[in-house]
Amino acid sequence: MQRLIERLGTLPGVGARSAERIAFHLLRAEPEEAMALARAISDLKTRTRHCTRCFNLTEQDPCGICTDDRRDQKTICVVEQPKDLISIESTGAYRGVYHVLMGHLSPLEGVEPEDLTIGDLVGRVKREQTAEVILATNPTMEGDGTALHITSLLSGTGVAITRLARGVPSGSQLEYANRSMLADALSGRQKLG
Amino acid sequence: MQRLIERLGTLPGVGARSAERIAFHLLRAEPEEAMALARAISDLKTRTRHCTRCFNLTEQDPCGICTDDRRDQKTICVVEQPKDLISIESTGAYRGVYHVLMGHLSPLEGVEPEDLTIGDLVGRVKREQTAEVILATNPTMEGDGTALHITSLLSGTGVAITRLARGVPSGSQLEYANRSMLADALSGRQKLG
Repeated sequence: MQRLIERLGTLPGVGARSAERIAFHLLRAEPEEAMALARAISDLKTRTRHCTRCFNLTEQDPCGICTDDRRDQKTICVVEQPKDLISIESTGAYRGVYHVLMGHLSPLEGVEPEDLTIGDLVGRVKREQTAEVILATNPTMEGDGTALHITSLLSGTGVAITRLARGVPSGSQLEYANRSMLADALSGRQKLG
Repeated sequence: MQRLIERLGTLPGVGARSAERIAFHLLRAEPEEAMALARAISDLKTRTRHCTRCFNLTEQDPCGICTDDRRDQKTICVVEQPKDLISIESTGAYRGVYHVLMGHLSPLEGVEPEDLTIGDLVGRVKREQTAEVILATNPTMEGDGTALHITSLLSGTGVAITRLARGVPSGSQLEYANRSMLADALSGRQKLG
């Protein structure tokens, strides 16, 4: 019991009190319920791996998105992390496939192009004759740097390279927007009529 | 004294305690300081009016932006409120002029086109042979509706009509972006190479 409480306490957002509460809950719970949780955790570590094509987390390789022939396999959305892929999937607005970089370039932290799946992306674009690469790295300095590096590697392959639009977030008020949002929104303004 | 405390207490964000504190501060302050505040308040009401060309708040008519010949007088940025104009000016990225609508269309609240300065805008665009109208209404349902209405009124005048870019805000993380931001960012994606 004490060992479980200690283990639970190391999880993010779980303090000593919550750890105790969870442990007592599991103690009272039906055996099947507790065993199902234990199995889910062990399956996560033994069965989950990265798709060898897009590097998304998956139980089968290639992953469900890569093998879905209703999706546009010629359009690749490049994201930093699997959680970014989940965000974009949740919009329901994207019908292409993905490539997960597994991070962003950060010379200061020692993250070089070889540490990411950038080489795999370039090889994949050439081999699969991809029509469009959508760079959906984070709108941060590191994300922008990573996008720039990929753009330079892909130039000359004939693939169309696009970047997520940057501007004011839908539903917000201009008076609360910061300068860089407004400057982006002005410089990227789109033709209406 | 009691009358001042009551008056101060009606200001937004000033509670009974703050009102007392301000009143005692003014009581102890140099007479010139207190009189300067009184004069600033009375000037605000007697001298500030709307520019007859762009409807921004001003002490002189036409306002300083409308009479600045280093600014591009053929590009009009259309905003809902004077405070939106201040936000866009703070970016330092805009060198054209403005038109303040004094609100947004809202049929439910009874705000019709005649309640805004939309008619003045249309007349101004035709008279001044404006080159571009940038619709910078808020990225909300009301702001979008207002922009759509203005677009339909201006179509056929030959003016280029653009809209602020909508997408992910600069400096943010995709994992925290909501669905509509991401859908906007995908649909408005811009060509890089």
